Amino acid sequence: MSEDAIEIVTRLGQNARVAAEQLAVTPGPVKDKALRAAATAVRDGRLRLLEANARDMEGAAHLRASLADRLRLDETRVEVMAQGLEDIAALPDPVGAVVASWTRPNGLRFERIRTPLGVVGIIYESRPNVTVDAGGLCLKSGNAAILRGGSESFHSSVAIVEALREGLGAAGLPKTCIQLVPVRDRAAVGAMLSMRGAVDVVVPRGGKGLIQRVLDEARVPVIGHLEGLCHVYVDGAADLEKARRVAVNAKMRRTGICGAAETILFDRAAVESHMPTILDDLITAGCEVRGDAEVCATEARARPAGEEDWNTEYLDAVISARVVDGVEGAIHHIHRYGSRHTDTILTENEAAASYFLAHVDSAIVLHNASTQFADGGEFGFGAEIGISTDKFHARGPVGAEQLTSYKYVVRGDGTVRP
Amino acid sequence: MSEDAIEIVTRLGQNARVAAEQLAVTPGPVKDKALRAAATAVRDGRLRLLEANARDMEGAAHLRASLADRLRLDETRVEVMAQGLEDIAALPDPVGAVVASWTRPNGLRFERIRTPLGVVGIIYESRPNVTVDAGGLCLKSGNAAILRGGSESFHSSVAIVEALREGLGAAGLPKTCIQLVPVRDRAAVGAMLSMRGAVDVVVPRGGKGLIQRVLDEARVPVIGHLEGLCHVYVDGAADLEKARRVAVNAKMRRTGICGAAETILFDRAAVESHMPTILDDLITAGCEVRGDAEVCATEARARPAGEEDWNTEYLDAVISARVVDGVEGAIHHIHRYGSRHTDTILTENEAAASYFLAHVDSAIVLHNASTQFADGGEFGFGAEIGISTDKFHARGPVGAEQLTSYKYVVRGDGTVRP
Repeated sequence: MSEDAIEIVTRLGQNARVAAEQLAVTPGPVKDKALRAAATAVRDGRLRLLEANARDMEGAAHLRASLADRLRLDETRVEVMAQGLEDIAALPDPVGAVVASWTRPNGLRFERIRTPLGVVGIIYESRPNVTVDAGGLCLKSGNAAILRGGSESFHSSVAIVEALREGLGAAGLPKTCIQLVPVRDRAAVGAMLSMRGAVDVVVPRGGKGLIQRVLDEARVPVIGHLEGLCHVYVDGAADLEKARRVAVNAKMRRTGICGAAETILFDRAAVESHMPTILDDLITAGCEVRGDAEVCATEARARPAGEEDWNTEYLDAVISARVVDGVEGAIHHIHRYGSRHTDTILTENEAAASYFLAHVDSAIVLHNASTQFADGGEFGFGAEIGISTDKFHARGPVGAEQLTSYKYVVRGDGTVRP
Repeated sequence: MSEDAIEIVTRLGQNARVAAEQLAVTPGPVKDKALRAAATAVRDGRLRLLEANARDMEGAAHLRASLADRLRLDETRVEVMAQGLEDIAALPDPVGAVVASWTRPNGLRFERIRTPLGVVGIIYESRPNVTVDAGGLCLKSGNAAILRGGSESFHSSVAIVEALREGLGAAGLPKTCIQLVPVRDRAAVGAMLSMRGAVDVVVPRGGKGLIQRVLDEARVPVIGHLEGLCHVYVDGAADLEKARRVAVNAKMRRTGICGAAETILFDRAAVESHMPTILDDLITAGCEVRGDAEVCATEARARPAGEEDWNTEYLDAVISARVVDGVEGAIHHIHRYGSRHTDTILTENEAAASYFLAHVDSAIVLHNASTQFADGGEFGFGAEIGISTDKFHARGPVGAEQLTSYKYVVRGDGTVRP
C-alpha cells in the first residue's frame, strides 16, 4: 500500500472525526439549510460543473458506452442532482428520533435514540450523481463523509464537492463534513478499510467488480465490546443524598464488571458542597482514591493521579477523581478519556442533564442513576451476550433482538413501476 | 494459520449455514421448547457437568484467582445457568416481528420484518456461563451459533453444549444449530474472522486483551451491495393479466438496474395457462429468452439456457426461464442461484404467497408487484446510497435512517442497582 495514500486518508479521517462530533449535535434545520444551499450552489454553478465534466469525458474515451453515459452530465442531470438534495432536505431528521421507550419496575425510564454512525467512507465508480446522493445522505444523517469516486469522474467530483461545501459554509458547518479523497491511487480503498476506529463504516457502491474488490479486503463484521471506562459526573446542582448513594453504588456494588465507574468528575461548583462527603463515603467503603491536585488538597487520604489513571479501567476498588468546569468540562474529559460505554450525570438541573444526555456520545447515558445498570437484564432484555461499544448494528446491551436483521415484505395487486 | 483449524472451522460453517436455514423459519414455541429442554438437561446432567468442570480446574492452576473463579462451577451456578435458559425461553420471539409498516400512494403495502442474522460466531474466555448465554440467545434469535470458548474451559464447554444439544434434539432441531470449535488452536479465531459469507457476524466477549486481538484482525465494517439476481415466480394460481404486466415491467422497464428481473420461474401448473403468453410478451418487448428444455419445447424462439445463465446478472434485455415444481421448487432455485436481493411471487393463492414471503431469504420479497420497486425512492426513503444485500446493520435500501446508530438515554431519581 502506498505510504502517500495512507497518510492522506489518515488525515482525512482525523478531520472527519472532528467534523462528525459537531455534526452529530447539529439541529435538523441547520443540516437542511446546508442541503438547500448546496442545491442552489449546484444550480448556480452548473456551467463550472459541466466544464469539469467535459474534462472528465475527454479522458474517458476508453470507457464502455454504458459507463461513459453514467459519467456524462447535462443540464437536466444537474437539475436532477439539485432536486435530489432538496428532496433529502425535505425528509424528517432521523437523528434524535426516539425509536423505543419503556419504564422498568424500579422506575428507570429508558429511551433508545437514533444517533449518527460517525464517519462514513463511500467508495464508488465514476458516477457524479453518487457524489451528490452520498454526500447529501451522510449530511442528513449527521455523518461526516469521506468520498472516493472513480478516477474517471475526478474533476466532476471535485466540482460537486465544492458545491456541497458551499452549502455547508452557508449553514455555518465545517467543510470537512464532506471530503473527497484527493488522489486517484487505488490504495486509498485499502487504507480506508483498514482504518477501524477512524472510519465507522465503508459503503461500496458500484458494479460487481468494485464491490467484490472491497469485500475481498473486508473481514467478517464484529460486534466489539471494548472496555467500560465509565464516568460519574457530580454537578453543582446535584442532590447530595442521591449523589452519595449513586456514586458509591456505581463504583463499589461490584468493581469487576464493565459498568463499574472508574472516574468521578466533580463540578467546580460541587467542590465544597459535595466532594468531601462523597470522597469520604468512597474511602469508608474501602475504595482507593487517586485525585488531581484539587482533590488531593481537599482529601488528605487521596493519592495523586497520573495521566494514565484517566485511561485505566481498574476493575477494582480504585477510582480516579478530578475537578472539571461544569458540564462542558465533564463532557470534554469523557470524550477525551472515556470508552463511550456508560456515563452518568448527577444533577437536579434539567437543562444540564439534557445537555449531558444529548452531547455525551456513549452507548448508555444516565441521569441520576448508577452506571451499574449497564446490563441487558436491567434493561429488560432478559439476557445479553455483551455490551457493544460499536455503533454499527448493535450498541449497548446485545440481547436476542440485537442478533437479528430484517427484511422487507411488499404486497401489491399486479403493481408495476412506471 | 494452521490448515487444520481452517478446515475444521470451514466445515462448522457449512453445517451452521444449513442449520441456520431451518432455524430461521422455526416457530417460536419450538425454539422455546428446545431452550426449556436444555435447561432440564443442564439440571439433570449437573453431576457430569461438575465433573467436566473439575477436570478443567485441575488444568487451571496457572490462572489468576479472579479467572479461576469465573471458570469454577458449583451446584448454585449450574442452577443459575438452567434458570437463564428458562428466562430466555420466556422472552417474546424477536423473529417475525413487524418492526414497521406503511403504505405508499400507489397502494403497495410495506412491512419491515425481523429476521435472524444467520450464523453467529462467538469468541470468549474460559467462562462456562457464556456458553449457555450465547448458545441460548442465538437459538432464541434463530441464529446458528459457532462457539469458541477459552481453552481452559474446554471440558466444561463440551458438557454444556451437549446439554444444549439435548434440548435441540427434544424439539426436533438439528444439533448443528449450536457447535463448539473442537480445537484449542488460536488460529480458529482468525479463521472465523476470515469467513465472510459463511459467518455473518463475530461477537468477541471477554477481557480487553481478547477483544483487542479480535479487533486487530477485523477491518472497518462494510455495507455490501452485491449483484441483484432477481427472480419472478409465476404460480399456477397467478392472475394472467397481472402476471403479464408485472413480468414485462420487472424485466424491461429498465434492464440496467439492480432490481431488474434476470430469471423467470414458471410453476409446472402455469406452463400451459400462463407461460406461452408471458414469454410472447417478453419477446415482443424485445427480450431474448434463454430457457430450459420445457421452455424451449413451448417457445420456439427461446435459446437453450446453460448452467451459467441461472447465475448471470445480465443487466440487459435477456432473461433466463425455467419450469419448477410449485412454490417449493421456486424457493429451492432462488436460494441456490439468487443473490438474496429482490424476488417476487405472482399468485392469487394467499397461502402460497405467505409461504414464499416467509421462506425466501432476500432483502426484499414481493407479492404481485414488480422487482423494479427495489429502490429507496419507491420505498419512501427519499434517496438511497444503495441496496444492501448484507444482513448486518442495514438490509435493502440504505437511506438516511440506515446510516444511523442509536444510544440509550436512561433517567432515574438517585436510582442504584441492588
